[in-house]
Amino acid sequence: MTPLKKFQHGLKKQNIDLSIITSPQLINYLIGYASEPNERILSLFVSDSQAILFTPSLESDDAKSIVSIPVYDYDDGMNPWKVINEDVLSHFHPIHTVGIDYESLTVDKYFSIQSLLPKAHYQDIGSMMNQIKVIKSKEEKEALMAAGKLADQAVQIGINTLKVGITETEVVAKIEYEMKKLGVSEMSFPTMVLFGDHAGSPHGEVSDRKLKENEFVLFDLGVIYNGYASDMTRTVFFGSETEISDRQKEIYQVVLDAQVTPQQQVKPGILASNLDQLSRQIIEDAGYGQYFIHRLGHGIGQTAHEFPSIDSSNQDRLEAGMCFSIEPGIYIPGEIGIRIEDCVYLTDEGAESFTQFDKSLLYIDVK
Amino acid sequence: MTPLKKFQHGLKKQNIDLSIITSPQLINYLIGYASEPNERILSLFVSDSQAILFTPSLESDDAKSIVSIPVYDYDDGMNPWKVINEDVLSHFHPIHTVGIDYESLTVDKYFSIQSLLPKAHYQDIGSMMNQIKVIKSKEEKEALMAAGKLADQAVQIGINTLKVGITETEVVAKIEYEMKKLGVSEMSFPTMVLFGDHAGSPHGEVSDRKLKENEFVLFDLGVIYNGYASDMTRTVFFGSETEISDRQKEIYQVVLDAQVTPQQQVKPGILASNLDQLSRQIIEDAGYGQYFIHRLGHGIGQTAHEFPSIDSSNQDRLEAGMCFSIEPGIYIPGEIGIRIEDCVYLTDEGAESFTQFDKSLLYIDVK
Repeated sequence: MTPLKKFQHGLKKQNIDLSIITSPQLINYLIGYASEPNERILSLFVSDSQAILFTPSLESDDAKSIVSIPVYDYDDGMNPWKVINEDVLSHFHPIHTVGIDYESLTVDKYFSIQSLLPKAHYQDIGSMMNQIKVIKSKEEKEALMAAGKLADQAVQIGINTLKVGITETEVVAKIEYEMKKLGVSEMSFPTMVLFGDHAGSPHGEVSDRKLKENEFVLFDLGVIYNGYASDMTRTVFFGSETEISDRQKEIYQVVLDAQVTPQQQVKPGILASNLDQLSRQIIEDAGYGQYFIHRLGHGIGQTAHEFPSIDSSNQDRLEAGMCFSIEPGIYIPGEIGIRIEDCVYLTDEGAESFTQFDKSLLYIDVK
Repeated sequence: MTPLKKFQHGLKKQNIDLSIITSPQLINYLIGYASEPNERILSLFVSDSQAILFTPSLESDDAKSIVSIPVYDYDDGMNPWKVINEDVLSHFHPIHTVGIDYESLTVDKYFSIQSLLPKAHYQDIGSMMNQIKVIKSKEEKEALMAAGKLADQAVQIGINTLKVGITETEVVAKIEYEMKKLGVSEMSFPTMVLFGDHAGSPHGEVSDRKLKENEFVLFDLGVIYNGYASDMTRTVFFGSETEISDRQKEIYQVVLDAQVTPQQQVKPGILASNLDQLSRQIIEDAGYGQYFIHRLGHGIGQTAHEFPSIDSSNQDRLEAGMCFSIEPGIYIPGEIGIRIEDCVYLTDEGAESFTQFDKSLLYIDVK
């Protein structure tokens, strides 16, 4: 069943007469049309039996060549809501209940919709959408695998670039350049390459920090490929095994255990919070609990941050077909930051990783 | 006066007791703190005399080192709205009127705020914010100039890369690589390089289309630098003057006239719609009116698309200190696309361009 059909099925079940979607990502998910309208209006109107796309006129020819549903448009300078009222809404009747996505719809658009349909009852379709999106199809899994494969390559490219004195920014530039040449139109988030103590903040900013001998290098990166995202983290040691300190080695090993254990043990049925705890306990038992200051993971799909959240408060059970990251880390401000991350596809047998790059402690020859 | 002070002044004038801002861009504009919280909650609470930043705890140390206002935070797994209710709102009293930005606030957050402050009256602060943001300070103008200078360099890099058989994607990769090396952390929008007939759609997608002799190459690009955006378009001919057709030459000349005329004539006091018309008339008089299918321009500042919109329906008068693009184009599907764009700063004397790259028809030697 296509995503649109699944959604229409859900609308019918919940007695929603019309759903109005303005999120470019949801539109792309539902009908395979990717477009960023900026401040213009792009929206998808869906009932249990029909769907209409509404676009700025300068996008409508492209849209018509891609989607198989009717496309209506408006010119710059027209009031799009007036055009919607006149051209689009008349195709849907009656409209008692309107489904909107609370998480992506902005207040101005909500009020514009309300002014066209003042008597309608409004209902959040966010959780229905999440339920549909969270279980990935075979095609989606393959797209996520392809995006993961490129991320593996990107880490290797980054490692090949390392030399004394190179800056974090230069390594990022090289990785993204090579990815673009491989046909990657965008990274799934700003590529993170952090050296040594600079990785001690889990959300550090890439800078002109120069690489020195005998420090860790953290790569956190992913690509968007054929509409699906990858996201992975590896931390490697730039220096020889004789130069690493016992403490550095120990911290790496703790993070590795905290990453591999949940990835090996996860099965459908486990609570998301329990998976988080399984990893967290390992870090706490090693005495570094205070330095693991974020959740274990997040869902992945068309973007690098989706439902489900793998955190201590999420009591949802994980199901086969879900895709999410497993990414524990230890961050000691001013000293060190280690994180290891794979995103996985959950099957009845366990987790299949989208990324395969070696997770054992790698020593990179100093150049 | 700092942006925050201007905003607090506006809140006082409009009797707004508390404004709650969730847009990362507005937060960055108001207090100089740039952060993308993804699905976590980042928000700024402002009254006429106080301001408090609320962040995810994994960002709070960074935030405290950057901003000079109190910072409160919450851990993953906590309910951020509960923490806001307990720790933040008590600092503001009484709260009768709450200012929110309709254009950036999502419905879920709006309802969360409403549940904490159910008796408050809600008011849109979007237009107040636009009025403040639209007039750029000297420092902002300088930042926009610096971003423009990098865009000029980027076009030159792109031109230097052109050779028979290179793909659009490869040219984009090279431009962005060189920009990263120059310290640009992100482009202000996905870099567009379109060859020949592929530019016939104004919002074409960069592809593996290979460059051939004697066709136009359209560059539309910009960078974010020190928090401010640039945006420019140039279209150059890859081939010699003896190979260009009269029609190609004519279309270029019409677009150039339609770009240069408004840029030379614009003065404070003109209606945005009249500036659009000034350009549009030139293209219409030349017989290409049906192929100029978008507005003349858009504001620019921290992002490449801001207030004011230079379109046929905007009856606002342009004022000194405003910054916007002037970017007419002619797009004949399947044949040709020409656009020329500068972003300018409006002074009492006229427009100062942020980008200086030659606009006359350039012939690039075939390699």
